[in-house]
Amino acid sequence: MNEKTELRIIGKPIPRHDAWEKAFGLTCYAADFSLPGMLYGKVLRSNYPSARILSVNTSRAERLKGVKAVLTAKDVPRNESVTRFGQTHVVGGGFEGLYRVLADRKVHFMGEAVALVAAEAEEIAEKALELIRVDYEPLPGIFDPIEAMKPDAPLVQEGRPNIITHYEVVKGDVKMGFSEADIIVENTYRVPFVDHAYLEPESGMAWIDEDGVITIRVSTQVIEHFRGIADVLNLPHNRVRVIGTYVGGGFGGKEDITVEAFLALLTYKTGRPVKLTYTREESILSHSKRHPYVMIYKTGAKKDGRLTALEAKLVSDAGAYVYLSPWVLLYSMVNAAGPYRIPHVKVDGYTVLTNNTFTSANRGFGAPQVCFAYESQMDELARRTGLEPEKIRMMNYLEKGEALATGQILERHVALQETTEKVIEALEERTLPSGQMRIGRGIASGMTSYGRMVFLHDTSRSHVSIEMDGSVTIRAGIQDIGGGQASSLCQITAEILGVPIEDIKIYIADTALTPFAGTTTATRQLYMSGNATLMAALEVRKVLVHKAAGMLGIDPESLDLVDREVIDKEGTGKSLPLKEVVRACASDGVPLYHVALFKAPFRNIAQFERIEGQVFPDFTFGTHGAEVAVDEETGRIQVLKLISSFDVGRAINRLSVEGQIEGGAIYGMGYSLTEEVILNQGITMTPSFSEYLLPTSMDVPDVETILIESGDGVGPFGAKGVGEPSVCSVAPAIANAVFNAIGVRIYDLPLTPEKIVKALKEKKDMG
Amino acid sequence: MNEKTELRIIGKPIPRHDAWEKAFGLTCYAADFSLPGMLYGKVLRSNYPSARILSVNTSRAERLKGVKAVLTAKDVPRNESVTRFGQTHVVGGGFEGLYRVLADRKVHFMGEAVALVAAEAEEIAEKALELIRVDYEPLPGIFDPIEAMKPDAPLVQEGRPNIITHYEVVKGDVKMGFSEADIIVENTYRVPFVDHAYLEPESGMAWIDEDGVITIRVSTQVIEHFRGIADVLNLPHNRVRVIGTYVGGGFGGKEDITVEAFLALLTYKTGRPVKLTYTREESILSHSKRHPYVMIYKTGAKKDGRLTALEAKLVSDAGAYVYLSPWVLLYSMVNAAGPYRIPHVKVDGYTVLTNNTFTSANRGFGAPQVCFAYESQMDELARRTGLEPEKIRMMNYLEKGEALATGQILERHVALQETTEKVIEALEERTLPSGQMRIGRGIASGMTSYGRMVFLHDTSRSHVSIEMDGSVTIRAGIQDIGGGQASSLCQITAEILGVPIEDIKIYIADTALTPFAGTTTATRQLYMSGNATLMAALEVRKVLVHKAAGMLGIDPESLDLVDREVIDKEGTGKSLPLKEVVRACASDGVPLYHVALFKAPFRNIAQFERIEGQVFPDFTFGTHGAEVAVDEETGRIQVLKLISSFDVGRAINRLSVEGQIEGGAIYGMGYSLTEEVILNQGITMTPSFSEYLLPTSMDVPDVETILIESGDGVGPFGAKGVGEPSVCSVAPAIANAVFNAIGVRIYDLPLTPEKIVKALKEKKDMG
Repeated sequence: MNEKTELRIIGKPIPRHDAWEKAFGLTCYAADFSLPGMLYGKVLRSNYPSARILSVNTSRAERLKGVKAVLTAKDVPRNESVTRFGQTHVVGGGFEGLYRVLADRKVHFMGEAVALVAAEAEEIAEKALELIRVDYEPLPGIFDPIEAMKPDAPLVQEGRPNIITHYEVVKGDVKMGFSEADIIVENTYRVPFVDHAYLEPESGMAWIDEDGVITIRVSTQVIEHFRGIADVLNLPHNRVRVIGTYVGGGFGGKEDITVEAFLALLTYKTGRPVKLTYTREESILSHSKRHPYVMIYKTGAKKDGRLTALEAKLVSDAGAYVYLSPWVLLYSMVNAAGPYRIPHVKVDGYTVLTNNTFTSANRGFGAPQVCFAYESQMDELARRTGLEPEKIRMMNYLEKGEALATGQILERHVALQETTEKVIEALEERTLPSGQMRIGRGIASGMTSYGRMVFLHDTSRSHVSIEMDGSVTIRAGIQDIGGGQASSLCQITAEILGVPIEDIKIYIADTALTPFAGTTTATRQLYMSGNATLMAALEVRKVLVHKAAGMLGIDPESLDLVDREVIDKEGTGKSLPLKEVVRACASDGVPLYHVALFKAPFRNIAQFERIEGQVFPDFTFGTHGAEVAVDEETGRIQVLKLISSFDVGRAINRLSVEGQIEGGAIYGMGYSLTEEVILNQGITMTPSFSEYLLPTSMDVPDVETILIESGDGVGPFGAKGVGEPSVCSVAPAIANAVFNAIGVRIYDLPLTPEKIVKALKEKKDMG
Repeated sequence: MNEKTELRIIGKPIPRHDAWEKAFGLTCYAADFSLPGMLYGKVLRSNYPSARILSVNTSRAERLKGVKAVLTAKDVPRNESVTRFGQTHVVGGGFEGLYRVLADRKVHFMGEAVALVAAEAEEIAEKALELIRVDYEPLPGIFDPIEAMKPDAPLVQEGRPNIITHYEVVKGDVKMGFSEADIIVENTYRVPFVDHAYLEPESGMAWIDEDGVITIRVSTQVIEHFRGIADVLNLPHNRVRVIGTYVGGGFGGKEDITVEAFLALLTYKTGRPVKLTYTREESILSHSKRHPYVMIYKTGAKKDGRLTALEAKLVSDAGAYVYLSPWVLLYSMVNAAGPYRIPHVKVDGYTVLTNNTFTSANRGFGAPQVCFAYESQMDELARRTGLEPEKIRMMNYLEKGEALATGQILERHVALQETTEKVIEALEERTLPSGQMRIGRGIASGMTSYGRMVFLHDTSRSHVSIEMDGSVTIRAGIQDIGGGQASSLCQITAEILGVPIEDIKIYIADTALTPFAGTTTATRQLYMSGNATLMAALEVRKVLVHKAAGMLGIDPESLDLVDREVIDKEGTGKSLPLKEVVRACASDGVPLYHVALFKAPFRNIAQFERIEGQVFPDFTFGTHGAEVAVDEETGRIQVLKLISSFDVGRAINRLSVEGQIEGGAIYGMGYSLTEEVILNQGITMTPSFSEYLLPTSMDVPDVETILIESGDGVGPFGAKGVGEPSVCSVAPAIANAVFNAIGVRIYDLPLTPEKIVKALKEKKDMG
């Protein structure tokens, strides 16, 4: 594979291997799977956001006919010792032992699990829940992170401060920076709790296999939670196996353990297969949310638009448990000043415990929050300097070789000039104004890392092998959460081994069957497992080419693999069917498989508190443009057009990349306009999709996707990740468009009609 | 791991991981497994041993309510093109295209499959079989291999000669050898068709997984038949997965494809899970048998007992299809002259097609047949020379460095002097005579190869990894057919990694999950996968030791792994928990897994017809002793004692080795006394265990196992294989004991009461 070789399969818009079945509703998701003799699991959850458990009486439930198990905290072999339960990636940090699989003495948020039931039928299990009597003593809770930060605030978790992390980023002297500024804008931005709102709620099934291995088939982004699950059961890690199912949406919400430990406990106690699927209400109540942030931003610029200083304070609400909150804040810190050249920066970030629903990963992982703030600020500065929004940005965008406020050098191409130009061009094609609505246009740019933090020694493995008939098998521990991750690995392998995509079978997401590939999160799998698969395929190719060279009497360098044949590139017409070369290898005992290990570059960082240095392997840059129509009467915002331009490095599968970006744009649109988990004193007011409002197909505009392919990513063939980056700058683009339409700026997401009407009224009153 | 390290786990009699469940009847065998929505498969079989199929009418069966599929030859995508169907290991040989998955124009033996049915219930499937109308035109058949060899014999398979192989072994000049002999014995020996008579008949289930992979969970010795199954369906090999279940007895009878292709066809056509379990009668009718041989043996010796010449002609009945018959004959050829120093040898062997049930692998694979002949001859020579049976043997046993008649040098220790001495010693302890019975004692020695023929490029792979908590996982493509193969790999790995056996989990026998390890046949898996596992474990150990050396500041050479700790052998007391070393490796991104490939030494052989050179990697040598009581009135033989002494090289697990040898001794005892599939003009007269007589627990004597551990095998830690060797010399030992008791010699197995009474009468008549 030399660099001049023309790409035959990479970049093609090949429909994914699972597309047909998904489109026709035939895909077998977690809840579609049944086993003979299975039981149904149910979870009893706390109705209080903060309470002491005085007693739990399960005897009536246990006596109900058809009930096979009722479990409480005392039945969990290691209820408290699961140091990294739900925090698999948190290395140390002093948060060990905080979490309980089942609450014992106290509940800390509404929806916390208290007891488990397994029964012969779902109805019996539900009935049994009603028969469990829990005596609570309600305790005062704390629900506002700003309040929780005060020195005299009551503690959410006994013996631990509410502020669980304080990070800072410091570059230059921010005071001096503001003294040099001609214009300073300062605002407080708020973003809400957001649900992942996947179509498929949490679901799985567990059983004990013939050899006593607890096997859990579950909709998850992280099959490697088998370790944490084994710890809960106090079993060796090799006695638990997790098989990932098709995932009907993950978005970070299936990154932490959801149903797995409950399933494992119930099947371990009953010896029978157990299925557990959350209801929508249970899902919204119990799983992590995107962090609400309070963000105080202050940005200074010269009259000509050059930025001089940025100061920000971020307060993140962790809810009742730590989970991934410290890491999410870390991502926010690195992204807080945006992709801009700013001489003086100071950012302070806090993660704070409250008795709200806990928060953890959500697509974008701390980037969408700060992007809303810094891109709102940029538009404000544009207005104040009189520059076009794109002009002030293009003047300040960082370029390759320059450093972020954290000191991280951008070692690869920064395509923001191109993406911004493309979006502006596309916005020129105006949509017709619709009736009485006011039309506005806005843009926003963003940067988002892909791949995990480089101090974590990130690795992924992939196994590529050729069968005797020339068909190819990939084994990869990735999960395909809808991004087409699996198909991309097939496409990479097909390219390298010169076979059509249909010759490739990929096994994914099974801790027994597939080599470990880490989490399918952090937009890391195309980068990590893509590179591992590329390496493995290249090794297999090398063996084939070497053997064929011997058979043909040709220099290996002049051979290529195309269409199931090994051919002479020099055009002598000499060739061999791939199958024949495979057989020749096999009958000589030459192995045609390779397990490759890809290691992300590792760099240590000195300390956590002050974030400095090369924290991420690379970033994806892009720009969103929005055209909106605002009804000044009702406050309703209609998004007429969304334009998404991203440097994807290299599109491995054009359909998948465009699909990811379109999905990300709509995900961001929901964040902008309607989505909000409303908690009133810790109590969820939005327990269903009647209250929690998602964009419907009626709300979704055309999304125009404009790909830049710099070829300068760290993924295979120069690819970058787009899963999370595609979300981040949508909300500020829409907010900026709304300002452009009606001249008012909203500082709190979502941009509800009520807020629009109220802001218009205030503007008029002040007018 | 240096050689002086004391073995801590190897050699210990550790109960197997599956022992408890098997003893308590909890093991989930193939037929114990069910899936929701599954159908039941049934096979319609020919009632004629030779007939033309004029027509097959399935319409009535198809109309039966609950019937989901009725398949005949025309429904099989590649019915005839399965070049290696049932002949997976046969490389070439001109036998391609002989076999049909479902008979089309002709049936060649009674029990050949003609049609398949899948239905909602087993009873419906049975009823449907009755509704299928097949019109046959009976054809004359040929049932005697000697007749079939005649030039004018009718052909079993159109256009192919009945004699499918003729091999020869030639050493020296056999005529000269006999001219030098003082004593010559010559006899014709016959051995019968033998059933494997496993407790568990052929059984499996197939389904289509979520990604469209045809998955077959089946009781088999060879999971790698997935290739042949894919060929039948005309699918790429990577679209078929075979998962091996626990095997309730294999003995070579589950080496060829049994239910797999039928299951695959039915599930492919219906889209539903299908289960198929043979009845006992169907099993006896349809699966391969051990080859009946006619063996003309002539052996010459000097007066003092030294052997001068051996000439033998072997005729093997292949039945109606080739299967593994040529290979079985090849094994017989190499073993035909026994472990003896004979200057002049000539052996001719023939494999012949007939219309009998086809024959293929059966524990011993061609060795038990010839062993019965050559060890009967040895006793005859002992009688004629006046030497004790052990004396004439010990005088003629080959020794290390000497060559077989094929020219193969015995490169390792030949322990027959020791095994014979041990057996003779043990036979001295006489059992009390029982009533009117005549007591006799006999011995017989044997040699049997372990591992496949060296010209086949045999390979096996094994994958060893350590989990984060220090528990260990092995993935090996072996099948455990009751020999404790899986537990042996665990024991090897536990020894190398210094962990207790319960810390190890092994996954076996799954073409998707486990690396290819070849067939679990030919007594090859301890040798092949044992070595591969040893290699993989040593690589993992190397990484651990290296890391621990760095952590402790100690030379790696002085470290050992014991009881979940890395310790300083020099006694400084310095140590680290294994778990800590594992975590240190993991957080540095150092991989703790290895896939090892073990390649058996390869040697080409020039030609097949004349068998010469190093055909096998090594042999296992041993001696059986038998004490019998014969009732001269009824002819009944009671085996009072069996003594089995073998050089096992190294007993990896003493319990497993002894179990294998005891089982082999009883297997050989059944062959000696009662077991025979009786075919009358191709029609099975012994379709159940009422007619086909196995030893029962009442018939089984004490088996005394005496292990020699030379440490000179080619397996891990110097182990040899014992699975097949333990069977071979039982029948001649018993026949020799019978002669010793009553002075008559039986030349045909089994030694039935009728034959004894008849021989006694003849002796008396002649007397």
